[in-house]
Amino acid sequence: MRGAAQVCVIGAGLSGLAAAHALAVRGIDFVCLEKAPQVGGIWRKPEAGERGPGYRSLHLNTAKELTGYAAFPMPDSFPAYPRHDEMAAYLRAFADWAGLSARIEFGTEVLSARPDFDGSWLVGTRDAHGVTTTRRFARVVVASGANAEPLLPDPVPEGAESFTGRMLHTVDYQEGGEFRGQRVVVVGLGASAVDIASDLSRHAAHTVLSVRRGLHVVPKQLYGISCDVIAESPWFTGMSPTEQREYIEQALLVARGRLSDYGLPEPDHPIFSSAVTVSDEILSRIRHGAVTPKPEIASFTGNLVRFTDGSSVEADAVVWCTGYRMSYPYLPADCPVGPSGRVELYRRIVAPYRPGLYFVGLIRPVGAITRALEAQADWVARLIGGEEALPPGDVMGKEIEEYLSGVAARYGQGLGTSIQIDVVPYVREFRTS
Amino acid sequence: MRGAAQVCVIGAGLSGLAAAHALAVRGIDFVCLEKAPQVGGIWRKPEAGERGPGYRSLHLNTAKELTGYAAFPMPDSFPAYPRHDEMAAYLRAFADWAGLSARIEFGTEVLSARPDFDGSWLVGTRDAHGVTTTRRFARVVVASGANAEPLLPDPVPEGAESFTGRMLHTVDYQEGGEFRGQRVVVVGLGASAVDIASDLSRHAAHTVLSVRRGLHVVPKQLYGISCDVIAESPWFTGMSPTEQREYIEQALLVARGRLSDYGLPEPDHPIFSSAVTVSDEILSRIRHGAVTPKPEIASFTGNLVRFTDGSSVEADAVVWCTGYRMSYPYLPADCPVGPSGRVELYRRIVAPYRPGLYFVGLIRPVGAITRALEAQADWVARLIGGEEALPPGDVMGKEIEEYLSGVAARYGQGLGTSIQIDVVPYVREFRTS
Repeated sequence: MRGAAQVCVIGAGLSGLAAAHALAVRGIDFVCLEKAPQVGGIWRKPEAGERGPGYRSLHLNTAKELTGYAAFPMPDSFPAYPRHDEMAAYLRAFADWAGLSARIEFGTEVLSARPDFDGSWLVGTRDAHGVTTTRRFARVVVASGANAEPLLPDPVPEGAESFTGRMLHTVDYQEGGEFRGQRVVVVGLGASAVDIASDLSRHAAHTVLSVRRGLHVVPKQLYGISCDVIAESPWFTGMSPTEQREYIEQALLVARGRLSDYGLPEPDHPIFSSAVTVSDEILSRIRHGAVTPKPEIASFTGNLVRFTDGSSVEADAVVWCTGYRMSYPYLPADCPVGPSGRVELYRRIVAPYRPGLYFVGLIRPVGAITRALEAQADWVARLIGGEEALPPGDVMGKEIEEYLSGVAARYGQGLGTSIQIDVVPYVREFRTS
Repeated sequence: MRGAAQVCVIGAGLSGLAAAHALAVRGIDFVCLEKAPQVGGIWRKPEAGERGPGYRSLHLNTAKELTGYAAFPMPDSFPAYPRHDEMAAYLRAFADWAGLSARIEFGTEVLSARPDFDGSWLVGTRDAHGVTTTRRFARVVVASGANAEPLLPDPVPEGAESFTGRMLHTVDYQEGGEFRGQRVVVVGLGASAVDIASDLSRHAAHTVLSVRRGLHVVPKQLYGISCDVIAESPWFTGMSPTEQREYIEQALLVARGRLSDYGLPEPDHPIFSSAVTVSDEILSRIRHGAVTPKPEIASFTGNLVRFTDGSSVEADAVVWCTGYRMSYPYLPADCPVGPSGRVELYRRIVAPYRPGLYFVGLIRPVGAITRALEAQADWVARLIGGEEALPPGDVMGKEIEEYLSGVAARYGQGLGTSIQIDVVPYVREFRTS
């Protein structure tokens, strides 16, 4: 066991860099452990043969002015929605500008992080040479991202084992060109599903989008303004939730009509009571016959994919864009997902019964995430630096309960919804603390 | 010289098939001469090595319900905006359904059509074997399309001859995949320019769109309704022109904001006083940095393309999407473009001083063209069948003058604007005649 810095930051993506920067500006000693050989997290270009959630056509879904760090704006030469490689270059530039690069241990995977009897944390790692080490830290900031394990439907549809084509998950999708001339079924209606279906539709012979449940599909902009910028604008946040909803619903009616016009299921919930799917392309691709919507997959037989409406298509490949399982294999089993089966964190950051452990970035905003991350990182640094103190455990427990019942009322029960936030009021909480 | 049918229809595309059908249902004897080996016109898939205005990513810009013939709707299985090959298959199916295929002479190019002393027309042709023939017809219906000769800027920018990259015109553009990894400049802001720039942006390393003059860029749909369907809807046509303009401008403000937000020049004219450019993609591609707008090209030096704002880019290719010269090389020189330098046709169909000559399809509507074509074809068949008669020459001349000064007031002077029509009032004219 080596002696070590006061704080361990796990991950050097958008969240980890924000956390490291917040600590660095306060002069707090830290090391940042990053599994990959470079900063960037999901935006980093994967090494040859490496799996990763990015794909060639991936762009930001949120505007550069809100997605870049406040202290280090993205360059003027960047477009409104930079591509993955521009975002990766930006994060590298930020790490250099903020003097963080030298304080990141690359190629270092965290195998375990557990509290010791004295309240410090023991962090076990494996470096690029396979050497395992255990180090002691006063605090651990988890910023590694939760999108680790590809998730398939459970159970998978009947006969899936008999499917003669290729099956792959988002995590292994690279680009549509690999599927030239093939018949492909994409499963899901999240951001990756609609991006991948749109990309495939320009290469595949036939692209089907299999959708189980209606979600609100919104363009990246309304009124020529990025939707995430609208979501944080004072003129919008000043409206009541009902006014906001009506305002956006009216605009969506102008910009795209009803989703059932496109053969997609109408959402069974009002907008803003669930994650929305952002896409400038998918509805147009459907209108052009380049993507055909279908309901849920019922079963597979050979190369035949049958849907719950009784229709079927022959397919050469199925891409499961069915998300990821939230996974922190190196953490104690009861954290961050508590006994309720939901993320149980005070202010979405602090595990009340795990002193010294902080989460940065385990949130799902309607719009851009960065201002919320920065508020989290800043508050964590203030806590660690002693400028702020946590309330007693029962107060934290009450906040968590109130938050979870609030999101449950609005978004329904679920692991995913337990990290949903509204950026503007969320950030405001930290300002007034 | 062979004896022949009463009527010669030149062209078997969307217009020619409409004309042939209108004649056939009235039992009027005709032959249809088609240069290509198949029906379809611009929608027909070019033979290997053949030039053609279609490209792989080409779809209809107008909705299938208004673009298909009224008597033979496009199949339910077609999407709202069919692709070029679906449109070609539809036109073949129409020709078969209407019993026209056997009456079309394929591979027959018209070399000349000129009036004889007795008022009949002599049509010189060359067949697929190179055999030339002259035939006499009582009437000639020109439906061959005017988009024949690729048009370049005149003069071409300075130094164009020194450009080391590839230069091509829309007519020779096939698909973006040919330009993988290249730096391409697309010139123009018409339908082909924005389609091609969007297509290229998914393959090229860098796509620039060089735009001289602002045009109104509109999505294919507003309110989930195809814009051409809106343009022909009674609730819309019942509004005054000012109300229509305000209504569409408001919707465009919601759906896309201002064009200057995208770095495009703002149009110097209100919407509907010029052709609009329909695209679901180009504005989004600009926002994603996949297409960069630039002003007019000032000059070329080697592989450097310099723009009028002083900026420059290196380029491997320039695609001139600068339109076509209206060209009817087989017709008498004074027709259809008259002494005013504009198309001078009574009701956009009849050349007053060329009895027996009719044009079908030489019109440019704001929305879908087909209902207007059908009205033209029907009226021409009624004239030829003797159900209708033309007014005296001076009445026709007056109508032409009034029409031309009307469009000049609204759209400005120009050869292109002299064929602009509003479909609904245009079609209504023929109903009440």
